[in-house]
Amino acid sequence: MGKPNILERLAAGEVIIGDGSYAVTLEKRGYVKAGSWTPEAAPEHPGAVEQLAIEFSRAGADVTQTFSFWCHEKSLPKGCKYSCDEINQVSCDIAKKIAKKYGTITAGGLSQTGNFARWTAKEDVQKDLRRAVNILVKNDIDLIICEYFRNIKEMEWAIEVALETGKPVAATMCMGPTGDEEGVTVGECAIRMAKAGAQLVGVNCLFDPPMLLEVIKDMKTSLDLFNLKPYLMVQPLGFMCPDGGSYGWVNLPEFPFACEPRQITRWEARKFAREAYDMGVRYIGGCCGFEPYHIRAICEELRDIRGRKIPESSDKSDYDLSTHKELESKFERYKNKGSEQWWKDMAPSTGRPMSTPFCRQTEPTCVHRAIFKK
Amino acid sequence: MGKPNILERLAAGEVIIGDGSYAVTLEKRGYVKAGSWTPEAAPEHPGAVEQLAIEFSRAGADVTQTFSFWCHEKSLPKGCKYSCDEINQVSCDIAKKIAKKYGTITAGGLSQTGNFARWTAKEDVQKDLRRAVNILVKNDIDLIICEYFRNIKEMEWAIEVALETGKPVAATMCMGPTGDEEGVTVGECAIRMAKAGAQLVGVNCLFDPPMLLEVIKDMKTSLDLFNLKPYLMVQPLGFMCPDGGSYGWVNLPEFPFACEPRQITRWEARKFAREAYDMGVRYIGGCCGFEPYHIRAICEELRDIRGRKIPESSDKSDYDLSTHKELESKFERYKNKGSEQWWKDMAPSTGRPMSTPFCRQTEPTCVHRAIFKK
Amino acid sequence: MGKPNILERLAAGEVIIGDGSYAVTLEKRGYVKAGSWTPEAAPEHPGAVEQLAIEFSRAGADVTQTFSFWCHEKSLPKGCKYSCDEINQVSCDIAKKIAKKYGTITAGGLSQTGNFARWTAKEDVQKDLRRAVNILVKNDIDLIICEYFRNIKEMEWAIEVALETGKPVAATMCMGPTGDEEGVTVGECAIRMAKAGAQLVGVNCLFDPPMLLEVIKDMKTSLDLFNLKPYLMVQPLGFMCPDGGSYGWVNLPEFPFACEPRQITRWEARKFAREAYDMGVRYIGGCCGFEPYHIRAICEELRDIRGRKIPESSDKSDYDLSTHKELESKFERYKNKGSEQWWKDMAPSTGRPMSTPFCRQTEPTCVHRAIFKK
Amino acid sequence: MGKPNILERLAAGEVIIGDGSYAVTLEKRGYVKAGSWTPEAAPEHPGAVEQLAIEFSRAGADVTQTFSFWCHEKSLPKGCKYSCDEINQVSCDIAKKIAKKYGTITAGGLSQTGNFARWTAKEDVQKDLRRAVNILVKNDIDLIICEYFRNIKEMEWAIEVALETGKPVAATMCMGPTGDEEGVTVGECAIRMAKAGAQLVGVNCLFDPPMLLEVIKDMKTSLDLFNLKPYLMVQPLGFMCPDGGSYGWVNLPEFPFACEPRQITRWEARKFAREAYDMGVRYIGGCCGFEPYHIRAICEELRDIRGRKIPESSDKSDYDLSTHKELESKFERYKNKGSEQWWKDMAPSTGRPMSTPFCRQTEPTCVHRAIFKK
Repeated sequence: MGKPNILERLAAGEVIIGDGSYAVTLEKRGYVKAGSWTPEAAPEHPGAVEQLAIEFSRAGADVTQTFSFWCHEKSLPKGCKYSCDEINQVSCDIAKKIAKKYGTITAGGLSQTGNFARWTAKEDVQKDLRRAVNILVKNDIDLIICEYFRNIKEMEWAIEVALETGKPVAATMCMGPTGDEEGVTVGECAIRMAKAGAQLVGVNCLFDPPMLLEVIKDMKTSLDLFNLKPYLMVQPLGFMCPDGGSYGWVNLPEFPFACEPRQITRWEARKFAREAYDMGVRYIGGCCGFEPYHIRAICEELRDIRGRKIPESSDKSDYDLSTHKELESKFERYKNKGSEQWWKDMAPSTGRPMSTPFCRQTEPTCVHRAIFKK
Repeated sequence: MGKPNILERLAAGEVIIGDGSYAVTLEKRGYVKAGSWTPEAAPEHPGAVEQLAIEFSRAGADVTQTFSFWCHEKSLPKGCKYSCDEINQVSCDIAKKIAKKYGTITAGGLSQTGNFARWTAKEDVQKDLRRAVNILVKNDIDLIICEYFRNIKEMEWAIEVALETGKPVAATMCMGPTGDEEGVTVGECAIRMAKAGAQLVGVNCLFDPPMLLEVIKDMKTSLDLFNLKPYLMVQPLGFMCPDGGSYGWVNLPEFPFACEPRQITRWEARKFAREAYDMGVRYIGGCCGFEPYHIRAICEELRDIRGRKIPESSDKSDYDLSTHKELESKFERYKNKGSEQWWKDMAPSTGRPMSTPFCRQTEPTCVHRAIFKK
Repeated sequence: MGKPNILERLAAGEVIIGDGSYAVTLEKRGYVKAGSWTPEAAPEHPGAVEQLAIEFSRAGADVTQTFSFWCHEKSLPKGCKYSCDEINQVSCDIAKKIAKKYGTITAGGLSQTGNFARWTAKEDVQKDLRRAVNILVKNDIDLIICEYFRNIKEMEWAIEVALETGKPVAATMCMGPTGDEEGVTVGECAIRMAKAGAQLVGVNCLFDPPMLLEVIKDMKTSLDLFNLKPYLMVQPLGFMCPDGGSYGWVNLPEFPFACEPRQITRWEARKFAREAYDMGVRYIGGCCGFEPYHIRAICEELRDIRGRKIPESSDKSDYDLSTHKELESKFERYKNKGSEQWWKDMAPSTGRPMSTPFCRQTEPTCVHRAIFKK
Repeated sequence: MGKPNILERLAAGEVIIGDGSYAVTLEKRGYVKAGSWTPEAAPEHPGAVEQLAIEFSRAGADVTQTFSFWCHEKSLPKGCKYSCDEINQVSCDIAKKIAKKYGTITAGGLSQTGNFARWTAKEDVQKDLRRAVNILVKNDIDLIICEYFRNIKEMEWAIEVALETGKPVAATMCMGPTGDEEGVTVGECAIRMAKAGAQLVGVNCLFDPPMLLEVIKDMKTSLDLFNLKPYLMVQPLGFMCPDGGSYGWVNLPEFPFACEPRQITRWEARKFAREAYDMGVRYIGGCCGFEPYHIRAICEELRDIRGRKIPESSDKSDYDLSTHKELESKFERYKNKGSEQWWKDMAPSTGRPMSTPFCRQTEPTCVHRAIFKK
C-alpha cells in the first residue's frame, strides 16, 4: 500500500504545486550557461543542483523535476566531460534523493528533439524521445511531462511514447494565444493533447502568467465543448513580456542578460496562482524565472484550499504580513506594508527614468493597435 | 612566510573584489526573514549559507564575509534556538572553510549597535561593539569592516574598537549624497574615518551604484584636500533607487517585497565597476541585491587590470559574448546580442505598462525640480 | 459651367483634404464650453469662428465645414440668446464667406439626434434630421456629411434623408475596431453605408489615427468583397488614446481637461496621412484635436501626389526643413533637426516623471493581454 | 485724473496677470515661422494677431504685450516686405486698440540685441536698445519689459535705457536655477536688476513653471537679504522640461516641432499660479506655450484674491466644474470629474507606449544622480 500517486491525488481534489526554474536560476548562481542552457551542472556540481531542489521542496513544491532539460549530445558544450546518459542519471539521483527526504513526486521531461523540424519522420523523432524516456523509466520517475513542444504533431508523438511507460503523462505546449508554430489554435492543441491520452494538459514557458492564463481559458472552453476532462496545468515564465511576439521572451532584446526589470514579484505570483485556481487549473507551477520564493508564494496564496498547509520555508516569509503589520504600527515608512491588497495592487516602479514598458524593437503601431483589441 | 594580507595586496596595486548580499539573497532562497533580516540561518541551515559563499567565491570574490549582520540578542526571532555567539561562531566556521578552499580573505563586520541612539554613552556602545568583535578575533578573521553606520560619531567609536584587534580595518558608512543622519557632510565623514585610523574608507548599502559613486567622488575630493590616503571602498545596493530619499531603498514603497523591477543587470554592475575603478576605488563589492552573477560581472569587467584572471564560474558566463556572437550570426532574433556596448547602453524595458520610473510617494515637484540641479 | 464638385474631383483622382476641429480648438480659445460643446459661438463671436475657418483654409483644407455640430435646442446652454436655426444660419454664412474667398467646398453635418435611443421610431428620428438638413439645403451647402453616428441603423436613416437633398453625401461612423454600439462589425457598417447610397464612407472622431486606420483597413476588405466602391474617408481624433475603450477618448480620465500629453504632433499627422493615402483613402481630414498646423502637415506630406501644391500658410512652416537644415549646420543643439525621418521616428518625451502611457483606470491585465493579440 | 498705472495698482495690493505666448501660438495657427520666430505677421495678418490679443484679454490678462519680439532687421526673412519699424508700429497699433477696448495695460519688450556677444561695447548695445525703445515711447506704451536676457550685464544696460523713458520698468532674465550664461547666480542677478532700478524683477521663458518658481524662491531670499523690495514677476514656459539642461526647452530634441506631450494643462497652470502667489509674486503670466485657456485658468485660480472677478471667457470654462459635477452625477464615465483636486492631482497619461519622461539625449546617469539632490 504505497502513497497515492499524482492522479489519485488530483482525483481526490488536490491542487498540485510544481517547482520552478532550474536552468535560469542556476545561471545566476554560476552553474549554467546562457545561450546553451544545458544541464551538465548536475554531474559537475551536484551539490548546487541539490541545494536548489531542496529550496523548491522547502518552498512547498509537490514535485521535484529532474534537471535534464535540453540534454542532447550535440547541444552539450565542447569538452563536456559527461554524456547525456551520465547527466540524466545524476539528475535522477538528485530528484530521487529529494523525493525521499521531502515526499515529493518526481517528474521527468520529454521535450523538442530538434529532429522534428529536420526529418519530420515519426520513427526518427520517436527514437530520440524513447532514448530520453528510458532513463526516466529505469529510475522509476513518477510523472512524465511532455513539455516545451512548439508543434502539436510532435507533441502527439511524444505523448504516444510517454504513454508506453505506463506512468501518468502531462503535456504542455510552449505557445501563446496565437497557437502552435504552424498556427494550430490553442483550442485544437488542447483537444489533440487530451485525445492523445495525456492526463494533464496545458502550457509552459515563453509567455508570462497573464498571457498563459488567457491561453488556458481558451483551452478550457474548447475541452469543455468536446467534453474532454484532462486536468489543466500551467507553468508560465517568471518575467513579464507582453511585447515578446510569437516566440515570447526569447524575442526580447533583453533576453537573456537584462530581464531583471521584468521579473515577477511574489505578489504577481500569488495573483497568478489564485486566478489559475479559479479557472480550474489543478497543476500550478513555474518555468524560467520562477525562483523558490515564487513557488512559496503560490503555496501560501492557496493555503485556504490546501488545508491551511504552509511550506517549510514559510517560517521566514511573513506570508500573513504579521511582521510588517507590526512594523507598520511603529514606523511611518512602513505605511500600508501590512496590507496584502496594497502589495497586490502595486505597479512597482523601476528606478530607471529611461526605461519604457515595451521594448523599442516592438513596432510601435503594432502595440498601439493591439492594445485596442479588447 | 604567509600569503600577503589585504593591505599588502592593496599596496601592491591590486583591486580587491568584495562579495555580495547574504541576507537579501538568502531571503529569496527561503532562509532569512524580511523585516527582521537576522542571520540565524547560519546554524539552522549551514549548507545553504555555505552554498552561497561558494557561489561568491566561484564568482571571483576575493573576500568571504561572515554571515553575521544584525546579530543582536534582542533582534533574533522569538523562539530562536541559537544565541548570537552560537550564530556568529557557525558563520565564522563557514567563512574559514570557504577561505581555506578558495583562498579568500575572511572579513567580519561591526555595525550599528542600536545602543547609540538610546544611550549615546561611548562606553555602552563600545561594550556592545567589543562583544561583537571578540568572536571575530577569536576566529582570526582577516579584516574588520565597520559598516552600515549612519552616524559618524558611532563610526569613530567602532573604528577605535576595531583597531584594538590589530587587524586591518575598513570603514563604510551607509549614507547618500546628503551625508550622515545628522547632516555631517560626506566629505567630513571620509576625513574623520581616515583620521580615526581606518585603512579603507567608503560607503555601503541603501543607495544605488550611481549614487554611491557620487558620494565616493565627494569623499575623494575631501580626502585629497586633507592629504589623507586611505584606500577607497564601495559596496552599493543592487537596486536602482534614485527616488529613495535620505534612507535610500528602505524608504521605497516596493521595499522589501516588490523591488524586482529595480534589480540591476550584470551590465549595470560592469559599468559601475569600471567607473569605480576609474575613480580610484580599490575595494569594489556589493551589498543587498548583489547576487553571485553580479560579482562575477565585476571581476570580468576588470579582468584587464587584474592580470586577465577570470572567475571560476566564468566558464558558464559568456563574458566575452563569444557564444552570443555565434548565435547572432545564425539567428535574426539575436541581433546585437554579441555586442558588449549594446548591452551596456540598453535601458531595459519593464514589461509593465502601469509602472512609473519613480514611486508615486515621491513628491512629483520635488523630483521635477531636483532633476534640474546638474 | 461651374467648377467641378467634390465627386467630380474625386473621380478625377484627387485627394480631398478635410479641415480640423472647431469645438475643441475654440474651447482653448475661450468660445466653446467643454461638457456641452455647442456651437453658439457662431453668432456670439463670428469673428473668432471665421478666424479659425481662415486658418484651416490657409492650411490647405479643401473643405470648410459649417460650425454647427451638436446644435439641438435642448443642448444649448440656459439663457442662450440664439435658436438653433439662428446659430446654423450664421455658421452657414461664415462657411460660404470662406468658400467664396478660398474656393473651398462647403460641408454641413448631420449627426446623432439623441432621439434614436429614446424613440427608435424612424419617422421621429428623420423628422429631426430633416430639420437639420433644411438649413444646409437652403444655403446651398456643397456636401452633406452624416457623421458621428454610433448606430448603423440611425446612420442608414440619416443617409436616406441626406440623399433627398440631391447633394453628394458622405457617411462616417464614430466607432473603433469593435464596431458600432450594438456590435455590428466595422465591415458590415461599411457595406450598409455604401448600400444606403453614401458616396463617401468611413469613420470620424473618438479614436486616434492608428486605430481608425485599422478600422478603415477592415472596411476596405469588406467593401472589396462585396464589390462596393465608395470613396473612403477618415477624420480621426487628434489625441493618442489606445487605452480609451469602446467609447474612445471620452472614456479617458484626462477627457476633456488634461489631454495635452496625448495631442498628436505634426509628424504623427503626416505619418497618418501617408498611411491613409496608401490604403486608398481619398478624403483625409481631422476631427477633435486637429488644429490648423496638423491640416497643413497633411497637405505638405501629400504634396507629391497633389501636384506639388502647398498650402498658403506653408510659407511659415519649414515643411521641407530647409531652415532647420541650416540651423543644424550651425548649432550643435540642432543636431538631426533637418531630417524628416528623425522627426517621424521620434517617440516624444513627456517631461512628466509620474505619467504612464496608459491611464490607470485601464484594467492592467486587460492591456497586458490585449497587447499580445497581434 | 487717469486710471491708476501698473505701479499704483501693485502698490494697492493687486496681482497683475500677464498674457501668454504670441510667437508659439501663432506658429500653430500658421502665421509665424519656427526657427526664425520673427513678428512680421503683425502687418501681414493683423486680424490674426488681433484675434489672439482679444482672446488673451477675454481670458483675463491685465496686460497686452506688443507682438514685437525678436524684431531685428537681420533676423527678418528674406523678401519680408516690412521693416522693423513698420512691424513694430502695427504691433503697437494692435495693442493700443485692444487696450482701449478691454482696459488692459500695454507693454512692450526690449530683449537681447545679439550685439552684446559680438561687441560687448555698451554704447553699441544701448544704441540698438534705444532704437527699439523709441517706438514704444512714441506710442506711449505703459510698461517697458526688459526680457529674455541671458546676461546680467546686458540686462543692466537695458534697464538703464528703459528707465530713460520715465515708464515703469520690468526686468526678467531667461535663466534656470544655475544662473545667467556666465554663471552669475540667480540671487546676484535679482539684486543687480533691482539695484539697476527695475520696479519689477523676475524670470521668463525657457524653463517650466516648477523650475522658475525655484528660481524665484532663490531671488526672493537674496533680495530680502539685501533689503530690496521690487515686485516679483514670473512668465514661465508652457511646456514641462526638467530635462532641458542650461538652455531649457531649446535644448530638447522635441524642440520646436514635437513638444505637444510636454504642454502644460490648465490644472498645472492653476497650481503654478497659486504657488507663485503664495511665494509673493505679483506679476504672473506665461511665455511660449501659454495659450488663452492657460491665462484664463490662472485668473480663475486666483479669483479668491482678485475680488471674485472672473474673466469674460469664463462663461465657457466650467471653472468651478459645476457642469462636470452634473455630468458626474449622471454618467459613470464622468466619475471624479467634478473635483478640482482630482484634476490637480492627476499625472496625465501620454497614450504613447514608447515615450519616456525624459529625452534620450539626456545622459541617464546625470538624471539619475541629480534626482537624489533633494
